[in-house]
Formats: sequence, C-alpha cells, structure tokens
Amino acid sequence: MGEKETARMEAFSDSVFAVAITLLVLDLKVPRLGADSSSEALLRALLAQGPSYLAFVTSFATILIVWVNHHGIFTLVHRTSVPFLFANGFLLLLVTLVPFPTALVSEYLGGPGESLAVAIYSATFLLMDMAFNLLWYTASKGRSLLRAGLPDQALRKITKYYSMGFPIYLLATGLAFVNANISLGICTALWIFWALKGAHRQAELASRQL
Amino acid sequence: MGEKETARMEAFSDSVFAVAITLLVLDLKVPRLGADSSSEALLRALLAQGPSYLAFVTSFATILIVWVNHHGIFTLVHRTSVPFLFANGFLLLLVTLVPFPTALVSEYLGGPGESLAVAIYSATFLLMDMAFNLLWYTASKGRSLLRAGLPDQALRKITKYYSMGFPIYLLATGLAFVNANISLGICTALWIFWALKGAHRQAELASRQL
Amino acid sequence: MGEKETARMEAFSDSVFAVAITLLVLDLKVPRLGADSSSEALLRALLAQGPSYLAFVTSFATILIVWVNHHGIFTLVHRTSVPFLFANGFLLLLVTLVPFPTALVSEYLGGPGESLAVAIYSATFLLMDMAFNLLWYTASKGRSLLRAGLPDQALRKITKYYSMGFPIYLLATGLAFVNANISLGICTALWIFWALKGAHRQAELASRQL
Amino acid sequence: MGEKETARMEAFSDSVFAVAITLLVLDLKVPRLGADSSSEALLRALLAQGPSYLAFVTSFATILIVWVNHHGIFTLVHRTSVPFLFANGFLLLLVTLVPFPTALVSEYLGGPGESLAVAIYSATFLLMDMAFNLLWYTASKGRSLLRAGLPDQALRKITKYYSMGFPIYLLATGLAFVNANISLGICTALWIFWALKGAHRQAELASRQL
Repeated sequence: MGEKETARMEAFSDSVFAVAITLLVLDLKVPRLGADSSSEALLRALLAQGPSYLAFVTSFATILIVWVNHHGIFTLVHRTSVPFLFANGFLLLLVTLVPFPTALVSEYLGGPGESLAVAIYSATFLLMDMAFNLLWYTASKGRSLLRAGLPDQALRKITKYYSMGFPIYLLATGLAFVNANISLGICTALWIFWALKGAHRQAELASRQL
Repeated sequence: MGEKETARMEAFSDSVFAVAITLLVLDLKVPRLGADSSSEALLRALLAQGPSYLAFVTSFATILIVWVNHHGIFTLVHRTSVPFLFANGFLLLLVTLVPFPTALVSEYLGGPGESLAVAIYSATFLLMDMAFNLLWYTASKGRSLLRAGLPDQALRKITKYYSMGFPIYLLATGLAFVNANISLGICTALWIFWALKGAHRQAELASRQL
Repeated sequence: MGEKETARMEAFSDSVFAVAITLLVLDLKVPRLGADSSSEALLRALLAQGPSYLAFVTSFATILIVWVNHHGIFTLVHRTSVPFLFANGFLLLLVTLVPFPTALVSEYLGGPGESLAVAIYSATFLLMDMAFNLLWYTASKGRSLLRAGLPDQALRKITKYYSMGFPIYLLATGLAFVNANISLGICTALWIFWALKGAHRQAELASRQL
Repeated sequence: MGEKETARMEAFSDSVFAVAITLLVLDLKVPRLGADSSSEALLRALLAQGPSYLAFVTSFATILIVWVNHHGIFTLVHRTSVPFLFANGFLLLLVTLVPFPTALVSEYLGGPGESLAVAIYSATFLLMDMAFNLLWYTASKGRSLLRAGLPDQALRKITKYYSMGFPIYLLATGLAFVNANISLGICTALWIFWALKGAHRQAELASRQL
C-alpha cells in the first residue's frame, strides 16, 4: 500500500472524472421541430433550452473543480486505507451520477416541476461536497495517510477551505422550493467562487515557491 | 512478454472499467410526465423508478469491487500468457455488458417480467464472477505467471476468497424466478459483503506490514 | 519525435479503443413490450434480438484483436512520421465508427434489409483491416520507424500475418448480398481465427524466449 | 507546480479528447424504416443521412487536430499558471460540446433550418479555435511557462501558425446564412489544410533533427 496503490486509484478516478464530464453533452438534446423547421423556429427552440446550457456549464465546471481538488488531496496523500478507498468510491459514484440531475434540470426548469428538479440537482452537489470532505477527513485524520512535513496550520487551512461548500449547497437545496432560479444561480456562483478562490490560492503557493 | 505487457493490459482494462462504470448513469431515465408536471407528480415518477437507483448502485459497486480485485491479481502477476489474455478479454466483455442487464432491471422490476430481468442481471454477475475466477486460475496455475516468493498458503487463501461468489450468485439467479426482490437483495448484499471483507483483508495486510 | 511521441499516440489510441469497445453495449436495446410484459414475452423479445448479441460479441472481439495487434506494431516502432500519424488517425476513425454498423445489423438482421446492413458491417471491418495494414506499411517501409535489429524474415512474417484479413473481409462483404448470415458468420469466424492464430504466435514467441 | 502538474493536466485532457471523439458516433442514427424495409429503402435512407457522415468525419478530424496541437503546446510548456488552467478548462468544455452541434447539423442540413445549424457548428469551431489561441497566449506570454531555450523566431512562427484558423472560421460562421453547404465545406477544407500543413511542419522539424 505505498505510492503505487495511490497512483492506480488516481488514474482510475481521473478516467471516471473524464468520462463523466464528457457524457454531460448527451443531456443537450437536438430540438425536434414540427411543420415549421426554419432557422427562426430552430432558434426559438434552442433558446427555450437555455436552462440546459446553464446546467451543462455548471455541471462541467463543478466536476472540473472537484477533479482539481481531488488531485490537490492526492498530492498530499502517500498511502491508502480502507475508509479512504470507500470515501473515494462514494465520491466517484456521485461524480458519475451528475449527468442524471443535470438532465432533470434541463427537462423541468421553467415548468411546474422545477422546484424538485433543482432541489435534486443542488442536493447532488451537496452530497458530492460531503463525499469530498469525507475523503479529506479519512486522508488527514491523525495524519496517517499524509506525507511527512506538512505544518498543522496548512492542514487546518485546507480543511477550512474545503468546508465552505456545505452550508451554501444546503442553502441552495432548501431555496429550490422557494425559487428554483435563485437555487441554480447559487450553484453557478459557487463554482465561479471556487475557481477564483482556487486561482488566488494557487497564486499564493506559486509566489511562496519562488 | 515481461512487465511491460502486463502494464499495457492493466491500463487498457482500467479504461474499460472506468467507461463501463460511468455509462451506468445512462440507465437512469428522466421521467416524461403528461399533463401534470408538478413537483409532486415528478416526485411520484422518480420514486416509482426506485429499482433503477438500486440497480445503478449495485452495478456500480460490483464493477468497482471487481476492479479492485482485478488490480489485486495484477499486483501478483508479472507475466502474461495466451489463456490469461483470453480470460481477461472475456472478463472485460462482461464488464462492458453490465449496463444492459441493469437497464433490463430498471425497466421490468415491479412488473410481470421481473423474474427474467433479475435472473439475467444475477446471471451476468455470475458469469463475471466465473470469468474473474478463470483469470485467477490462468494466472496462478503452476505459478507460471506469478512473481516469485508467494507462499502456498497465501495463494490458497486468495483462491478460497475469490471462490465465495459463485454459489451465491448461482442462488440469486435461481431465486429470481421465486422472488425477484430477494434475488436483487442478494446481489446487493454480496457487494456489501465483498466491500467489508475486502476492508478486513486490507486491514490485516496493513497491520502485518507495520 | 522520439519515444515520447509514440507513447502519447499509444496512450491516446488506447483510450479511444477502450471507449469504443465499451460504447458497443449501447447497441443492445431493452425491449419495450406492449400489453403482455410477462417473463415469457420478455424472453421471446430478447431471443428475437439474438443477432444483436452476436454482432455485439463480434464487434467487441474484433476491436480487442485490432487493439492487441496495434500494440504489437508499437512494440516494434520507435519513431513517428506524418504518414504513420495519418494512418493511425484513419484507423481510430474506423474504430470509433464500429458501434454504428453494429447497430445497423442489430436492427436489420432477419428482415429484408439485412443484405445491405451486413455488407456495411463487413465493409467497416474491411476498411479497418486496410487502415491497419496501411499503419504497418507506413511503419515498416524502409524500416525508418522501426527499432534496430529486427530480422528481415520476421518483418515478412508479420506482413504476411496481417495481410490475411483483406481477402476474407472482401469475400464477407460480397457474400452479404447472397446470404447475410454466412457473411456475418465469416466475420465471427475471422476473429476466432485471429484469436487462435495470435495465441499460437505468442506461444511460439514465449517458447523462443525461454 | 512543476512537470508533474503538467503531466496530470495532459493526461486528463487526453482522456476528455478521447471520450469526446468516440462519442461522435452516437450522432449517427440507424434509420427507422416504415413498411418498406428492403435493402434499397435502407440504402436511400442512409444516403439521405449523407450530411451526418460528413459532419462526423469533420468533427472527428477537427478534434484530432486540436489534440495534436494541444500536445504540441505541452511539449513546450513546463509549468502551469491559473490563467493557463482556466484556458485549458474552457478548451475542454468546447471539445466535449462538439457532439451537440454535430448532431444539429446531422438533423437540419438539407432542410430550412440548415443555416442556423451550420452557423452554430462553425461557431463552435470558432470558439474552440479562440480557446486554443487563449491557451497558447497564457502559455507563451512573457515565456513564464515555457521551457528555456526556445528562440523568439520559433515562438512567433507558432503564434502565426495557430492564428490562421480564426478569420476562416469567422467567415464560415457568417457564410452559413448565405449558403450552409459552402460553410460546411470551409470547415472540412480547414481540417484538411491543418493536416497537410501539420505534415509539412513536422517533415521540416524531422529534417532539421537529422
């Protein structure tokens, strides 16, 4: 259970992330028009699918950010354990699941069932966030899987950084029943926030390495 | 046909496992509602798809466990042979097949055709289990492909460990015609058992290494 | 354009092979039954799909054997060239195409359109075989891309070995218009032949290495 | 953020390219015939799908060429930065999107909505081209991410080489509203041009290395 074990887990996880992120495109449906199949009618039909594109981009960006952070964990971890393997399996299950709630939102946003569709969408990201934090918890608890020489303060910072998603996804899930658009907006805002925050952190790291 | 050959087989097999496990999500269908497309109607439609989710999780977990054990074999094997390559191809054929019986169960569980659907589902896992044991047999027979220094007792333990699935999947396949839910329950119970058993074995290994 | 370039081409090609071989399962359709959805009706519907399963297995095995031989070429090749890159791209195009003629056969075998469906199926393998031989030709011509020390006789043997598929796939394509089942049978017989022939060759190689 | 970071980005990107290129086949639909399902009727139906095959081949070749050039960039880059990571994510988003406009063209070419369908198709390649140039810009600006020793002249040549696509894809997008076939023809001509141009460049490189 040395580095080799971690390498295999990482390669397999990477493949699952890559396939899941690419399958999202299957949620974008080519409109089937009736009698009027002019460019104008097609444009209207495509614009009516607007939520599909937003859900596609948000799901894509969220999986990409989870992948970046997943790798962030694996740069610190040098051993595996049974709970760590289980947490990783649970995270991958949720990653492969993402195309399903994305399709739900595409189908139901704008109609009467949008509350539930967006609630399930947000809840999937909530669960994914929990699985990710579980992975980090199993990796960092007692430092047993981490490589040597990581200062306590750095670990606490990482833990704090990863724990920001939970309350916000919980809020988004609850708000879906009040206003689906706001809930979806929070999910979108969150990946933009993660991306910028990640950018900031990486810039910090880079400047420290110089 | 040294280590390099094994590495290529392993990488290719890993990709197939990763794609197959991610394609399972395509078996989860977005419900198409009629006149009433409210959140309540959508919830009822999603709950009615309950078996899909169970079949999805069971198929996901079973493929993941076969992947973990597949890697377990490849940590012991340092050479390849023709029968070993064929057995691996047969196993991969069955792994890529899994989304099909999973879709069958999703479609037919709860209806009059559920016996056959669940029998085919269990039989696929039975065949996958047989292919896996064939792979181990071709790898361990006469020790010709194994790395040196493995004690006899360890090999016998592994053989015994891998052989536990056969009678149980056979039972599940037969019981499908008596009660489809019990049969599906056995398939579910089995991956939970493998996961816990695998956890126990790994903990043992870890403690021995210290 | 040294070994690194070959490694990248090989890894990318492997991923394409792995995804294409796993997408074949999407050609197996869950039967939608009408009023009678009993196990008996489902069994009849599944048995009526018999050709799908045969086409699935034949496509799977053919892609797997092309993958094995693709790797066989890359163990001899240490450099790349523009024609070699193009030939590889053409081969990958045909590999990713396989699920389409496989679906055609699944849909039309047994009906009046089976001649054309099976002819297209056989012709796809014919083209794949031609692309493969083109790849070997661009690799072996003038030995410019091959690693040093390969005896002339070995190269001639390989060329002869790879050239056996062409006349047979050509025959299968033509015979599709006489009898679709015989044509499909030839495609099936061919991958079994390749598998056994490959087994024989590898056993020879292994015995020589001892 | 040394070579290891680049290796991970590259492997993940490769997987996404490989899956996206293989998913294109799902845009080729098996024709469903009515009463007349003879070989002749099937042939007519398949020929009527001609645009699907052209769009399939053009999308395949375009993704393959972007992949080749993506690797070209990564042979020069030895470090990553936040803007570089973002540009790569944006490029991957567009690569995974390709099957959607490809399906749009397959469905609408030849009908009244073809202008918009082909405009969206060309615009996707335009955006992909822009994302690719953005990636190169973030990599080459101030040379901060490039490996040492690259002559200024070589960088300018590369920048010029990559910048040729933009005006042509812009033209193709605009021309779609005048004549969809010409627009599609430009997209096809462009990947053939890139392929030949790439061949020429590589031959030059090879001759210089001798």
